[in-house]
Amino acid sequence: MFEITVVTGNVNKAKEVASFFEGIASVGHEKIELLEIKGDDVEKIAREKAICAYSILKKPLIVDDTGFYIKALNGFPGAYAAYVLDTIGMNGILRLMEEKDDRSAYFETAVAYADESGVFVFKGRVDGQVTLSPRGEMGFGYDPVFEVGNRTFAEIEISEKSIISHRGCALSGFKEWFLKNRA
Amino acid sequence: MFEITVVTGNVNKAKEVASFFEGIASVGHEKIELLEIKGDDVEKIAREKAICAYSILKKPLIVDDTGFYIKALNGFPGAYAAYVLDTIGMNGILRLMEEKDDRSAYFETAVAYADESGVFVFKGRVDGQVTLSPRGEMGFGYDPVFEVGNRTFAEIEISEKSIISHRGCALSGFKEWFLKNRA
Repeated sequence: MFEITVVTGNVNKAKEVASFFEGIASVGHEKIELLEIKGDDVEKIAREKAICAYSILKKPLIVDDTGFYIKALNGFPGAYAAYVLDTIGMNGILRLMEEKDDRSAYFETAVAYADESGVFVFKGRVDGQVTLSPRGEMGFGYDPVFEVGNRTFAEIEISEKSIISHRGCALSGFKEWFLKNRA
Repeated sequence: MFEITVVTGNVNKAKEVASFFEGIASVGHEKIELLEIKGDDVEKIAREKAICAYSILKKPLIVDDTGFYIKALNGFPGAYAAYVLDTIGMNGILRLMEEKDDRSAYFETAVAYADESGVFVFKGRVDGQVTLSPRGEMGFGYDPVFEVGNRTFAEIEISEKSIISHRGCALSGFKEWFLKNRA
């Protein structure tokens, strides 16, 4: 069976990919220290990471990068979402959003697949709103303050979330391409 | 005369270096698109940028990277200072600092010099406080909200600032090393 290695420090990401490719490909998991480029474009970041990882592993692999973009904050925290969560946190985001009428925001993920033919990037995006306060116990990261319809991502079961989420959409796009071109 | 190329998109940075090396070395200026690595360590970022720039130019050069670290915000905005200024701005920083008693912060610059012998990094740091509101018309970036003693960096003449600033200290360290080892 075709093998795909998910390059990540997060074993849950590898599990999610495995569930997408059940019966299609076998999914492994490796953690490599990759130098990430600075910038606000998840597609470019994922592409460079994939090139770097492939130069080390030399076997079919995927990497991903996710950004969280808030319109009223000029796109902040963008591709720096993880760093911002570690420093000012969700409370910092909510404070910056006080008195902002436009609360629209989106998540975007780029999944980059690399093999001997090159690098192929698949994007997924989900639009929603920044809530006034955190709600829900599931998920991780900004999920409690990001709502689609009237539920936050932390109020949606993981199985449902992986269908509608930015990451789920990017993985679906990749899966469709993979079935046509590699399976 | 020995030639040093300052790799930067900011002509004022090149001018500042030139003033430090008057009579010692001739200072040129080139703009190259460099992939910057993501991370919160200005020394590492400057070092990688210098390696990348030297692989292109193959002549003695310097690059630098600066971070702004606020203690009460767990080091935010750190090495992402420029991105944060472009998105949430100084007002965003002041909003995040509302009700914070500890207003201590520091600037840190790493200057990386590369030539055929390798890469050498020189750091400078200046400690101060985040003000309650912006003051002063000079300088750029976070200068109006960063005070040392009772003046903000935007209230200090450029000639004085370049002696006490993080960048000035890093350049002084480099100059001292250069006079001993390269002049």
